Amino acid sequence: MSAPIYGRVALIGLGLIASSMAHAMRRANLAGEITGHARSAATRETAAEIGLVDRVCDTAAEAADGADLVVLCVPVGAMEAVAREIAPVLKPGATVSDVGSVKRAVIEAVAPHIPEGVHFIPAHPLAGTEHSGPRAGFAELFDNRWCLIVPVENSDAAATARLSALWEGMGAHVDVMDADHHDLVLAVTSHTPHLIAYTMVGVADDLRRVTDSEVIKYSAAGFRDFTRIAASDPTMWRDVFLTNKEATLEILGRFTEELFALQRAIRTGDGDHLHDYFTRTRAIRRGIIEAGQDTAAPDFGRGAASARKEG
Amino acid sequence: MSAPIYGRVALIGLGLIASSMAHAMRRANLAGEITGHARSAATRETAAEIGLVDRVCDTAAEAADGADLVVLCVPVGAMEAVAREIAPVLKPGATVSDVGSVKRAVIEAVAPHIPEGVHFIPAHPLAGTEHSGPRAGFAELFDNRWCLIVPVENSDAAATARLSALWEGMGAHVDVMDADHHDLVLAVTSHTPHLIAYTMVGVADDLRRVTDSEVIKYSAAGFRDFTRIAASDPTMWRDVFLTNKEATLEILGRFTEELFALQRAIRTGDGDHLHDYFTRTRAIRRGIIEAGQDTAAPDFGRGAASARKEG
Repeated sequence: MSAPIYGRVALIGLGLIASSMAHAMRRANLAGEITGHARSAATRETAAEIGLVDRVCDTAAEAADGADLVVLCVPVGAMEAVAREIAPVLKPGATVSDVGSVKRAVIEAVAPHIPEGVHFIPAHPLAGTEHSGPRAGFAELFDNRWCLIVPVENSDAAATARLSALWEGMGAHVDVMDADHHDLVLAVTSHTPHLIAYTMVGVADDLRRVTDSEVIKYSAAGFRDFTRIAASDPTMWRDVFLTNKEATLEILGRFTEELFALQRAIRTGDGDHLHDYFTRTRAIRRGIIEAGQDTAAPDFGRGAASARKEG
Repeated sequence: MSAPIYGRVALIGLGLIASSMAHAMRRANLAGEITGHARSAATRETAAEIGLVDRVCDTAAEAADGADLVVLCVPVGAMEAVAREIAPVLKPGATVSDVGSVKRAVIEAVAPHIPEGVHFIPAHPLAGTEHSGPRAGFAELFDNRWCLIVPVENSDAAATARLSALWEGMGAHVDVMDADHHDLVLAVTSHTPHLIAYTMVGVADDLRRVTDSEVIKYSAAGFRDFTRIAASDPTMWRDVFLTNKEATLEILGRFTEELFALQRAIRTGDGDHLHDYFTRTRAIRRGIIEAGQDTAAPDFGRGAASARKEG
């Protein structure tokens, strides 16, 4: 087994991503010591109980003190307060990174607090499940997934390479992307789809002529996938939409435009328009399967590979 | 092994549902003989090659001739022509059923052609994958899924019980529902979610500043589920929207109303509204898991239970 990439790694926030990082770093011996902090005492107790990290700390500053890498794994809206708290204890040459789903807002919130001599290198692993909390993590979460690294102005090349090596060691592929482009791409591939899924589940819940138990019993292919998405962490997603406002609103505008066109085709009985549209969308699906980001096995939310579930 | 429920079953249309029915009926010895017909010669050849049914027929009438049960497994828009063709060969006491996703339109299209002395009992198994064609079927598709039986006026009780027994033998739970209510429930749980998924995938494909390869590479949780839905059979779905027009348009109207409210919350920065909404939708997901229609294992479209895949 090779030497750790970082001597000490601090995880601030101990949810799904941080706990998966802890498992993945241990799997490949990537960190000499892992410290961790969560704001909630219950979360800290759980983390200690399951031995998630080597040392659970009562404050973010205590966890970050002396760390070679500090990773902010809290909701985007909580990043600034954490950055302000840990700034005084960051050691020269250390790297601060994060795993937020939005990058421009994180940079604006965190960068001003980073002391001279400390590297700030934002990142975003594109991986997740609908579960939250320290027990939700598993070592394989990042395997064969992408982690987007979003360097800020004057990001140190050696520090960036080291962080990339960590993510690759946790099983991910690494790409580098500009913050604004990241936020637009994610608005398309993740943020807007989540908002739409939340909305559809809310509509189903509201409809008086269809009971909740009918919705639940007869949740055929289609709706079940939406409910899985809509079960994700509310605080994390609130912050995503509040901080990636412009890109989300832009994509939402295009979405409603297209939806209205399809709605008109339904109303006027334009079957050719519908058939052409539905045929075109098949090609994207094929591309995703060929890119190895999903399997061709039939699923529709029915079965999950339980083998991949760990802690 | 008990005696077959029907002496001869004819499957008209040999796609995912019909081929899964063939496997499921054989698994439990539910039919003495299974005949099948598909309009496309290529599909008939494939069905013969893999031995999907006992006898592949060149016409629907040939397959239906002498059958105790004829199941129409063609897109909703094709049902009337098939009903007209097979009507003259239907034997007294036989049952005609279907597996269409819409029920009012199927009843209007098929019922007028059913001769006196033949039972017409529409049905809809709530099961599917994104794959199509005679090779897509597998015996377990209906296990623990619901099949909704939608009797028409004067549907014979004994014939209805026999069809229910067939579906239960294929692994499904059976419920009885009125046609209009069925169409509304399905508009909520299946039809509108599919339209929305198709739309989102189309938007991603159209956006010039984000390349298709970026969409494909970075299709994180959320979007991948949409692409799976949007890969479903275009002809089937065109017919669903054209024939369940009113209910789909009603639910779409409610959906856009809710979406605009969330969009306004994003624009105005109303985090409480977003957080409350996202918290509420979690409860529905929990209900679905408790109802046994999905598992709690983390998935997000990443893994499919390949064990369940058969032919």
